[in-house]
Amino acid sequence: MTKPLTSELGWSTVDSITVYGQDLPGEILGHVDVGGMAFLGLMGRLPTAGESRVFNSLIVSLVEHGQTPSTIAARLTYLGAPESLQGAVASGLLGLGSVFVGSMEGAASLVQTALSSAEPGKPIAEVAKETVAELLASKQPLSGFGHPKHKPVDPRAVRLFAIAKEEDLYGRHCQLMEAMSVEINAQSNKVLPINATGAVGAIASDLGIPTVVIRGLGVIARSIGIVVHLLEETKNPIAKEIWNRIDDEVTDAQINPSRSSA
Amino acid sequence: MTKPLTSELGWSTVDSITVYGQDLPGEILGHVDVGGMAFLGLMGRLPTAGESRVFNSLIVSLVEHGQTPSTIAARLTYLGAPESLQGAVASGLLGLGSVFVGSMEGAASLVQTALSSAEPGKPIAEVAKETVAELLASKQPLSGFGHPKHKPVDPRAVRLFAIAKEEDLYGRHCQLMEAMSVEINAQSNKVLPINATGAVGAIASDLGIPTVVIRGLGVIARSIGIVVHLLEETKNPIAKEIWNRIDDEVTDAQINPSRSSA
Amino acid sequence: MTKPLTSELGWSTVDSITVYGQDLPGEILGHVDVGGMAFLGLMGRLPTAGESRVFNSLIVSLVEHGQTPSTIAARLTYLGAPESLQGAVASGLLGLGSVFVGSMEGAASLVQTALSSAEPGKPIAEVAKETVAELLASKQPLSGFGHPKHKPVDPRAVRLFAIAKEEDLYGRHCQLMEAMSVEINAQSNKVLPINATGAVGAIASDLGIPTVVIRGLGVIARSIGIVVHLLEETKNPIAKEIWNRIDDEVTDAQINPSRSSA
Amino acid sequence: MTKPLTSELGWSTVDSITVYGQDLPGEILGHVDVGGMAFLGLMGRLPTAGESRVFNSLIVSLVEHGQTPSTIAARLTYLGAPESLQGAVASGLLGLGSVFVGSMEGAASLVQTALSSAEPGKPIAEVAKETVAELLASKQPLSGFGHPKHKPVDPRAVRLFAIAKEEDLYGRHCQLMEAMSVEINAQSNKVLPINATGAVGAIASDLGIPTVVIRGLGVIARSIGIVVHLLEETKNPIAKEIWNRIDDEVTDAQINPSRSSA
Repeated sequence: MTKPLTSELGWSTVDSITVYGQDLPGEILGHVDVGGMAFLGLMGRLPTAGESRVFNSLIVSLVEHGQTPSTIAARLTYLGAPESLQGAVASGLLGLGSVFVGSMEGAASLVQTALSSAEPGKPIAEVAKETVAELLASKQPLSGFGHPKHKPVDPRAVRLFAIAKEEDLYGRHCQLMEAMSVEINAQSNKVLPINATGAVGAIASDLGIPTVVIRGLGVIARSIGIVVHLLEETKNPIAKEIWNRIDDEVTDAQINPSRSSA
Repeated sequence: MTKPLTSELGWSTVDSITVYGQDLPGEILGHVDVGGMAFLGLMGRLPTAGESRVFNSLIVSLVEHGQTPSTIAARLTYLGAPESLQGAVASGLLGLGSVFVGSMEGAASLVQTALSSAEPGKPIAEVAKETVAELLASKQPLSGFGHPKHKPVDPRAVRLFAIAKEEDLYGRHCQLMEAMSVEINAQSNKVLPINATGAVGAIASDLGIPTVVIRGLGVIARSIGIVVHLLEETKNPIAKEIWNRIDDEVTDAQINPSRSSA
Repeated sequence: MTKPLTSELGWSTVDSITVYGQDLPGEILGHVDVGGMAFLGLMGRLPTAGESRVFNSLIVSLVEHGQTPSTIAARLTYLGAPESLQGAVASGLLGLGSVFVGSMEGAASLVQTALSSAEPGKPIAEVAKETVAELLASKQPLSGFGHPKHKPVDPRAVRLFAIAKEEDLYGRHCQLMEAMSVEINAQSNKVLPINATGAVGAIASDLGIPTVVIRGLGVIARSIGIVVHLLEETKNPIAKEIWNRIDDEVTDAQINPSRSSA
Repeated sequence: MTKPLTSELGWSTVDSITVYGQDLPGEILGHVDVGGMAFLGLMGRLPTAGESRVFNSLIVSLVEHGQTPSTIAARLTYLGAPESLQGAVASGLLGLGSVFVGSMEGAASLVQTALSSAEPGKPIAEVAKETVAELLASKQPLSGFGHPKHKPVDPRAVRLFAIAKEEDLYGRHCQLMEAMSVEINAQSNKVLPINATGAVGAIASDLGIPTVVIRGLGVIARSIGIVVHLLEETKNPIAKEIWNRIDDEVTDAQINPSRSSA
C-alpha cells in the first residue's frame, strides 16, 4: 500500500558523499562554483563554460535591486528577531511572488508558448508580430517589457543579451523577445524596453531551465542580496527609523485629523 | 528629529545601475560569478582568484545534504501551496537555526574567541590544549566536531582544508581547529572529527567573513538546495506519501492503542 | 508628491490606547473574546451574540485537523530552530495555499458568484441546478464538496450549518450550497458531501466576511493549532524520527537499488 | 529500531472527529470559543468561566498594537505576493522574536524563577526587594517593565490585572510583578511601569501556561492583527508609498551626497 520514498539528489555512506550524482569532495568541491552547482542541481549536468558564464550572470543580475519591499521587510523582521537571520531572510523572500519575480515566469511563458504553438518554420519576426497583436488586442500584460525608470533601454537587459551572444547561447527565445520589443513599438505608441526580468526569462528559456523553477533563480539571487542587506543593517540600521516615521505619521493623522488633511 | 535613511548597496539613475559600488552592467555582469557576487556584497571588494575558489567551495559544500528536516518541510509546504515556490523555500530555510546551521556560528565563534583572547605569540598548539581543556571541564558543546555517520573523518572537511591550503588561505583559525581536534582525541576518549560545519566556520573566519552572517552562507546555499528539491518534487513527489504514512500511523495508534503498543 | 500614510486600526497617546475605533482597556479588554476581536477587526463592528457564536465556531472548526503537511512542516522546522517558535509557526502556515485552505475561498467564490450573477428572484433550487450543470459540463472543480474519509456526510459541515440555523444566520449562500449538494448527487453518479471548508465558505459568505480574507480565517485558526502541535513536540517529539525514517529509506534505495525495487 | 509516531491532538474515523480528546462536532463546535479552544489545546482541559475571560483578555490585548515592524513587513510582502495571504502573515510573524514578544517570555521567566527559587514562605515583598536588587546590581534587563510612551502607567497592564482580580486569578506571580514595580521605583530613580507584556507574562504564569509557548500567545494574537492589516491594505494601501519614499531617500543620498548631508 505504501509508495517507496526515493530521491536522487544526495546520500552518503561512512566515507563517501554523493550529491547530484557526483562525488562531492572529489568531483565537486574546488571544481564547481556556486552558479555551476545550481545549474548541476537544476539541469542534471555540469554547465559548459559558456553556459556557466551566462547562467551565473542571470543570477548575479537579480541579487541586488536597491531598496525593495523584500529587503525592507527583511530589515524590519531582523529588528524584532536578530537571533534568527534565517527568519529575516525568509520574511524577505516571501514577497517574491506574482508581482515582482512572477514577471520572469510570465516573460518565459510568453516566449515559450508563442514558439511552441507557432507552425514549424514560421519566421521569428512573424511570430513576434502575431503574438504582439494578440496581446495588445486582448489587453493582456506584456510581461518582461517596460520599466518605470530605465528608458529607452534597461542596461541590464542589453548586457545580458550581449553576454548570451558572446557565448553562442542567444537562441530563439531571445530573438523572439527582441523582435517583440520592436513590434510593440511599431503596433502601439509605447516605447517599452525589454526589462531585466524579460531578458532573464528569455535567456533562461534558451538555456532550458524548467519553467517551474525560473522563479527560483530570483529566490536564490535574493537570498544573497537579503543577507547583504542584513549585514548592512547591523552597521547602519534603518529599520527602526522607518518604523518610527510610519508610526508617527499614522498616529498623528488619527490624533490631529484636521492638520493632516490640511 | 528624523534620522536620514541611507544604504550603500544599490541605486540607479535613468541609464546607470550601481550595485556594491560597481557599475552592474559594465563591471559585474559577465565578469563576476554568483559566489564572487556574494563575496563582494559581504566583504565590500571582489575576491582574489584564491579567495573565490575557497569561498565558492564553502557555499557549495552546504547546498545539498540529502533529506533534511529543512528539505522535507519545504516539500510538505509545496504540497499545499504549489503556486508559491518562494513560500516553500522560506519554509525550509526557517529550520536553519541553532541546531543545524548554528553549529557553524558556534565553531567560528570558538576559534575566533580562543585566538583573540590568547596572549600574543602563544603557539597555536598551546591555545588548542587550553581551549579544549576548558571546554571539556565546563562541559560546553564542542561546536564543529563530531558527526553521526562520517568517521573517523568527514571527507568534506578534509577536502575544504586541502583547498584552503592550495590557495594559501589556510590560516590561524584553521590551524587551531585542526590542533583542537588532536587535543580532543588526546584529552578525552572520543574520536571527534572536524565536521563540515566546523571546517566552514574555521575557513570563513580566516577569510574574514563577519560572524553575524556566517549563518547566512548556509542560508544562501540551502536556498539553492531547496529549489532543487522542489523541482524533484514536481517530477517524483514524496510529500503526500510522507504525510499519509504519518497520519495513518498516528491515527491507528489512537484508534487501536492495544495493537500499537503490542 | 508624497501620499499620506494613514491607518484606522490602532494608535495611542500617553494615557489612551485606541484599537479598531474603541478604547482598548475600557471597551474591549474583559468584554470581547478572541473571536469577537477578530470579527471586530474584519467587519468594523462587534458581532451580535449569534454572529459571535457562529463566527467562533467557524474558526474553531479549522484549528486542529490532526497530522497535516502544515503541522509536520512546523515540527520539522522547530527541530532545527527551537529558539524561534514564531519561525516554526510561520513555516507551517506557509502551506495554507491553494490546495488546502484555498478550497474555502473557492467554495465562497462559487456561491457568491452564482448568487450575484443570478437574475433577481430566481429560486435557489434553480440557481443550484444551473450552477452544477455548468460546473460539471466545464469540468471545473467542485470546491467545498467531497472528502476522502468522511462519507456520506462530513460531521463538521452538518454541525456548522445547524449552528448557523440556530442563530438565524443560515442565509442564501448556505441554502445554495446545500441545494448544490443535492444537485451534484442528482446530476452525476457521485455522492459528494459538503466538506468543512465548503460549510465555512458558505457561512462566512452569509456573515459578509470579505472574500479576500476568508483564507485568513484558516490562517488564524491554524496558528493556534500549530502552537499546540509544537507544545506537544516538546513533550512527545516525533520530528526527528520522521526525518530519520525518510533519510534511511531514501539512502537505502540509492545504495541498494535492487533490494528496494524487489 | 523505529520509534512509534504518536500524537494525542486529533484524529478521525469515517463518522467521528476527535480533537483535544473531545468530540469536535458534538462537544466543541457551538460550545467553545476561539480563546477556549486555544486554552483547551495548551492546557488539556476547558477553561473555567473566569479562566476563559482572563485568557481571552491576554490574547485580545496582543492583537493590535498599531503600526509595528511586523505589520509593515506583512504589508510590504503582500505588495509583492497578493496571491499568498498566508505568506504575508508568515512574514509578519517572523519578527515576533527576542526583541518584542520575547519580553513576555522574559517577564514570565523572571517572576517564575524568583518564586521557585525563593525559600518557602518568604513574603512576596521580600522576594521582590531581593530580586530587584540583584537585577539592578547585575544590570540585567528588567523584562516587562517600562514603556516609551505610556507613563506613569500602561493602561493595558492596569486593566489586565484588574480583570485577573475580578476572576480571582490574580496570584503570586502577579503580586510579585507589582511588588517589583514598587521596588524598582524605590531602589532606582526610574519610574518603570509594568507594561502590557509584563502583565501578560505574570498572568499567564498564574494561569499555568507552559513557558515554552507563552510567546505563542503573541503569535496567535498577531496572526489576527496581521490579517486585519492586510484587509486594510486592500482598501487603503500604504506599502507602495512606504517603499517609494525609502527608495527615493536612499537613492537621493547616494546621487546627491552633499545635499543630503547639508
